[in-house]
Amino acid sequence: MKYKAVLLVKRPETAITADIFNVVTLETPLLKEGDILIKQTHMSLDPAMRGWMNADRGSYIPPVELGEIMRSSGVGDVVESLNENFPKGTRVSGMFGWTEYSVSQGQGLQPLPKGIEPEAVLCVLALPGVTAYQGLMNIGKPKAGETLLVSGAAGSVGTIVGQIAKAEGLRVIGSAGSEEKCRWLKDELGFDAAVNYKSNRLFKDLLKAAPDGIDIFFENTGGPIQQAAFNLMNAHGRIVVCGVISEYNSDKPSPGPSWVNIVRKRLRIQGFTMPDYWDKFPELSNNVATYLLQGKIKYRAHVLEGLESAIDGINLLFTGGNMGKLMVKL
Amino acid sequence: MKYKAVLLVKRPETAITADIFNVVTLETPLLKEGDILIKQTHMSLDPAMRGWMNADRGSYIPPVELGEIMRSSGVGDVVESLNENFPKGTRVSGMFGWTEYSVSQGQGLQPLPKGIEPEAVLCVLALPGVTAYQGLMNIGKPKAGETLLVSGAAGSVGTIVGQIAKAEGLRVIGSAGSEEKCRWLKDELGFDAAVNYKSNRLFKDLLKAAPDGIDIFFENTGGPIQQAAFNLMNAHGRIVVCGVISEYNSDKPSPGPSWVNIVRKRLRIQGFTMPDYWDKFPELSNNVATYLLQGKIKYRAHVLEGLESAIDGINLLFTGGNMGKLMVKL
Repeated sequence: MKYKAVLLVKRPETAITADIFNVVTLETPLLKEGDILIKQTHMSLDPAMRGWMNADRGSYIPPVELGEIMRSSGVGDVVESLNENFPKGTRVSGMFGWTEYSVSQGQGLQPLPKGIEPEAVLCVLALPGVTAYQGLMNIGKPKAGETLLVSGAAGSVGTIVGQIAKAEGLRVIGSAGSEEKCRWLKDELGFDAAVNYKSNRLFKDLLKAAPDGIDIFFENTGGPIQQAAFNLMNAHGRIVVCGVISEYNSDKPSPGPSWVNIVRKRLRIQGFTMPDYWDKFPELSNNVATYLLQGKIKYRAHVLEGLESAIDGINLLFTGGNMGKLMVKL
Repeated sequence: MKYKAVLLVKRPETAITADIFNVVTLETPLLKEGDILIKQTHMSLDPAMRGWMNADRGSYIPPVELGEIMRSSGVGDVVESLNENFPKGTRVSGMFGWTEYSVSQGQGLQPLPKGIEPEAVLCVLALPGVTAYQGLMNIGKPKAGETLLVSGAAGSVGTIVGQIAKAEGLRVIGSAGSEEKCRWLKDELGFDAAVNYKSNRLFKDLLKAAPDGIDIFFENTGGPIQQAAFNLMNAHGRIVVCGVISEYNSDKPSPGPSWVNIVRKRLRIQGFTMPDYWDKFPELSNNVATYLLQGKIKYRAHVLEGLESAIDGINLLFTGGNMGKLMVKL
């Protein structure tokens, strides 16, 4: 059976362009004992992919090799099986890559319970949810009554960070790049306030949204919100640096805030990436599932159609064009 | 009995100038029950004083009020006593301020054991030592075999940070502002390497001194060493921000490094100031005393003579003109 896959064939110089990919047609192999054939139904597009495309610059996981299928996580159905642990019809999540089909012996695959939507898996229980939980709860260490600001608040991680923080009794402010996203954060997700980082009175808007200052800044984006948030940090504030997506396509990153206030305010600034916590993944995912089952986490998928839509579509993450978790339906 | 004291009468605009102080002659009062009269013999000059001179800008302790005696810690002898806890002849340390004599009921004063030099108290057991210990051991959390870089390495805190780190089995690199200081760090204090931050090949020098990268950067100074050190941090590195003295006289602080590598390398950057740990002061001081008694901490006092020498002398801290812990002998 023939299927399509997308290979990474060049490293991007700055932005991601179509010429770094090559769409190929492959044929599914004959299965050996222990093999399963997975038809991927939903494939996740994540900001971290930009880093995986670089030649190794001391990043946290090895780059995708040139000529390999581009790396990604996804959800799929087992359509043929010579492995009793994954009978035909099982729904699984795993790192399938940009491909319509994948053959595996089952390593690293998670069987998924029936009845749970594939969108909910990619939006909440997979990377976005565990990232949000680990960063907010285990690194940010929030206390009820504190004020949290999350940048990239309408993004896949930001929406969950804000909603878990609300569930934990914090005042929650989001920053996002359009009035529409800001309204959505307040009206649909229950954020206490939202600021548009493109506003030319960003600092004033943020000051109004955070009259008692900021105790936890969950940073996903970089850009103008970074300095504005930094200036409003309270003493003993924590800054969880999950990403600085506005910098990833740049070869000359913007400077950060002066360190003077790190001392004056005794701030803790801590970066993290999920591969350091793979062993905690099931536990973290269960913790997020609890909020989901209690109806405390709403999600929105931004769904592209067809494998090749990923090639241009991934750039929505860097232009802020997506509303909710970006994924491709195959 | 008449004595001299120095009042803060103006706030510095940027640099500390003589006109912000006023030298006054006062008379010792009659002692009441519980009072002691202390003749200060050694008075400490510390970088933190620059912050105490500002009108409150959200700093960690209140500013010195205009018209008050300038704040400082020191060592003195009880020369008259109506307090049985502090008999005449007791040596004490405390926050006496820029003054030759001080009257107290004993609150906040530490009696000192006989035979310990006042210089050792101010150089090692007082603020510099507890600051070094708290920052290095409790915030930096060093492990034997790791590499530490300390900036301001020839300063009061830096010398002790480096020597405790050596005692704990780390590779220790210091940065300082002259070849003479660098030699002293290596030859006298046993640092593994030292770099001159004024070198025009600073990054190369540092790379040579830290071939395995930097696990802990103990930051006292800011300036060019900050970015150079940041670029060499290893994954999971810790940056302890104790001070950025090069910025304190500036009203437009320099930016810090881009946050991209905070994520890539999962760095933790943490600021601290000692007033948050006053209750741990005796315990911390005891911990430092252990290294001192084991002969693992050498110290050097830079001693100015006479109360009024503090007025110009404090600027040695900001020009890097001092060699070792700056103090005034009265």
